[in-house]
Amino acid sequence: MTSSTGITISIDAMGGDHGPAVVLAGAAIALKRHPDVRFVLYGETQSVQPVLDAHPELAAASAFHHCDVSIRMDDKPSQALRQGRYKSSMWRAIDAVKTGEADVAVSAGNTGALMAMAKFCLRTMANIERPAIAAIWPTLKGESIVLDVGATIGADAQQLIDFSMMGGAMARALFGLERPTVGLLNIGVEEVKGQDEIREAGRLLKEMPIPGIDYRGFVEGNDLGQGIVDVVVTEGFVGNIALKTAEGTARQIAAYLKAAMSRTLMARAGYILAKSAFDRLRDKMDPSKVNGGVFLGLNGIVIKSHGGANPEGIAAAIDLAHAMARHGLREKIEADLDRFHRLSGETTDLSESMQ
Amino acid sequence: MTSSTGITISIDAMGGDHGPAVVLAGAAIALKRHPDVRFVLYGETQSVQPVLDAHPELAAASAFHHCDVSIRMDDKPSQALRQGRYKSSMWRAIDAVKTGEADVAVSAGNTGALMAMAKFCLRTMANIERPAIAAIWPTLKGESIVLDVGATIGADAQQLIDFSMMGGAMARALFGLERPTVGLLNIGVEEVKGQDEIREAGRLLKEMPIPGIDYRGFVEGNDLGQGIVDVVVTEGFVGNIALKTAEGTARQIAAYLKAAMSRTLMARAGYILAKSAFDRLRDKMDPSKVNGGVFLGLNGIVIKSHGGANPEGIAAAIDLAHAMARHGLREKIEADLDRFHRLSGETTDLSESMQ
Repeated sequence: MTSSTGITISIDAMGGDHGPAVVLAGAAIALKRHPDVRFVLYGETQSVQPVLDAHPELAAASAFHHCDVSIRMDDKPSQALRQGRYKSSMWRAIDAVKTGEADVAVSAGNTGALMAMAKFCLRTMANIERPAIAAIWPTLKGESIVLDVGATIGADAQQLIDFSMMGGAMARALFGLERPTVGLLNIGVEEVKGQDEIREAGRLLKEMPIPGIDYRGFVEGNDLGQGIVDVVVTEGFVGNIALKTAEGTARQIAAYLKAAMSRTLMARAGYILAKSAFDRLRDKMDPSKVNGGVFLGLNGIVIKSHGGANPEGIAAAIDLAHAMARHGLREKIEADLDRFHRLSGETTDLSESMQ
Repeated sequence: MTSSTGITISIDAMGGDHGPAVVLAGAAIALKRHPDVRFVLYGETQSVQPVLDAHPELAAASAFHHCDVSIRMDDKPSQALRQGRYKSSMWRAIDAVKTGEADVAVSAGNTGALMAMAKFCLRTMANIERPAIAAIWPTLKGESIVLDVGATIGADAQQLIDFSMMGGAMARALFGLERPTVGLLNIGVEEVKGQDEIREAGRLLKEMPIPGIDYRGFVEGNDLGQGIVDVVVTEGFVGNIALKTAEGTARQIAAYLKAAMSRTLMARAGYILAKSAFDRLRDKMDPSKVNGGVFLGLNGIVIKSHGGANPEGIAAAIDLAHAMARHGLREKIEADLDRFHRLSGETTDLSESMQ
C-alpha cells in the first residue's frame, strides 16, 4: 500500500546499460532529495544485495523483491513479454503500480519491452486508444513537454487530440500552469501544410475548445527549442526523430566547443577564466539533468529512463516520477478525459464529426 | 547559351525576405570567388537597377531581364503558378535552365512556389515520380546530404530508393566520393522499427545493390550530426522537422553560450582571451555558411536559398549552385538512373517485386 505520508516508487533495478550499481546509486541520490519517499525494488538478489549493502540509507527506505528474470536491453518486445511476464523485474515494477503497492514505476530498461509490458499490465485508459511517451524538452524559456516521442508510429486526428489533452494535464501537473499552451508539430509550406491527420486535428482543436488547454495552432521544428508553447504534439516517429536530432546536435556542438577551446594557448587560458560559465553551460546541455520519458494514457504512470543514464540521470528520472505522483498526474488526466468526453457528448459526437 | 569557358547561373533577384539588395550583394560576393561565372538576373528594373549600379563588377558579368511580376514570400503555390507563370522573376530564372541559357537557377523565394514552378517548368526526370529537396548537413566529420527536407509529404519504398540514388549522385558530385554511404532515417525500437515503406526500402536496397552507393542500413536522429553516413534518406515531413529542429537547437545553444559568457567579469575576460576560438565556433554554427536546398529529380537543377539569408548566405547558395553545375549533377543523376533501370530490368522488375 502507498505509505500515508509519502510516495512509493517501484524500481526495475536490472534495467539500463549498467544494471543495479548505477540504478541504485541514482535512487540513493533521489532519496536524499526526497527523504520521505519509499522504494520497492525488483531484481536479482545476487547483483542487487551487494549494492544495497553499500547504500544503507537506501536499503532502509526500500523493500526488495527477488526476481529470477531480467529483460535484456536488446530483447524484442514480444520476446520480453513471453519470457518476462509476471516474473521479470520490469514486469513486477509495473505490476506494483497496478496493485497500488507503488504510485509510479521507473525503469531504464529497453523502451519497446517496457511499453509492451506496461500496456499489457496496466491497459490503456478508457477512451484512450494509444499510449504516448512524453519527453521534457529544455527550451530558452524553461521546459516544454513533447509527445509522442516513440510509443507508436502514426496517429490519427483523434489520437493527436488525446495526446494534446494528456500533455496538457502533464504540463498542469509538472509546471503548475492553469491552462498550458499546446501546438501541433507541422512543416511550414503553406498549401501542403502537413499530413491530413494534423490538419484535421488542428481544425477540431480550434472548433471544439478543450477545457484545460490553450491550443495555439501549428509549430515548426525550430520552435521546439524556443519554448513557444508548453506542449508540442506529434506522432511517435516524427517525435522520436526530432528528440534524437536535438540530442545529437547538442552533442555535436559540445564537441565543436571542446575542440575550439583547446586549440590555442589563448583559448585554453580563456577557458580557464570562464570555467564557471562553461560549467553552467554544460549543466544546461547535460542530458542527465533532464531524463525520463513519461508513459501517458495507461492506468498507471511509468517513467522510462535513458538506458545509458549515469546515477544523476537515474535520479532525475526518479525526481520526475516523484513529481508526477505527487501532483496526481494520472487522476488529472482521467478527470480531463472524463470532462472532455462529457462535454463533447453533450454538444456533438466527435467521432462522428470526424468521419 | 552556356558560355563556353564558365558557368551561367540564373537568379531570381526578387526572392527572399530582403529582396534585390541582399540577393545581388550575395551574387557580388560569389562572383569574387568564381570570376568566370556569368549571371542572368530576373527582376523589376526599378528595384534591381540601382543595386546593379552599386555593383559595377556584377553588372558587367550579368545580363538583366525585367519582369513585371514578383512572387511574394506568402503566396501559395497555386496562386504563384496562376499569377507568375511565364512572367515572374522566379519562373524566368527557372525557365532559363530549361532553355539552356543557364546551367542552374537560384532563388531565395518561397519554397512551395519555387517547387511548384520548378515542377511545372522543368518536369520530373524519366523514372522519377517525385522530386526531393536535399540539404547539406554539417557533421562532426564534415558534411552529409539529407533528403527529402520538404518537397513532398510521404514517400513509398520506390521513392525512398530514388532519393537514395539521387542523394548518392549528389554526394559523388559535391564530395568527390566514388561510392558514398547511404542510410535510411528510422527510429530505434527494434520490433516496431519504422514505417512499412522504410522497412521495404531497406530490404530492397540490401537485396538489389545499387551501383554508386553503399547502403549501410538504418540511422537514427542522433546519428545525423555525427556524420556516420554521407547521405541520409527520409520522406519530406520528417526531413523538414529534423532539419529545423537541428537549426533551432543550434540557435538555442548559441543563446545559452552568449548568456553564460556575459554573466561574470571572469567569464567576459575569458571570452576575450578565447575570442578567436569563439569566432571559429560561430563560423561552424553559422547557418549562412551552409545554405541552399538542392531540388533533385527535375530536368534541371534549382537551388533554394533560405529566405532570410544575408549576402554571405546567398553567396553560399550560389557557391553550391556553381559546384552542382561544374560537377554535372544532373547528368550524373540521369546516368545513375539509367544504369539502375537497365540493371534492374535485366535482373528483375523492381516495381513487380514490390507488389
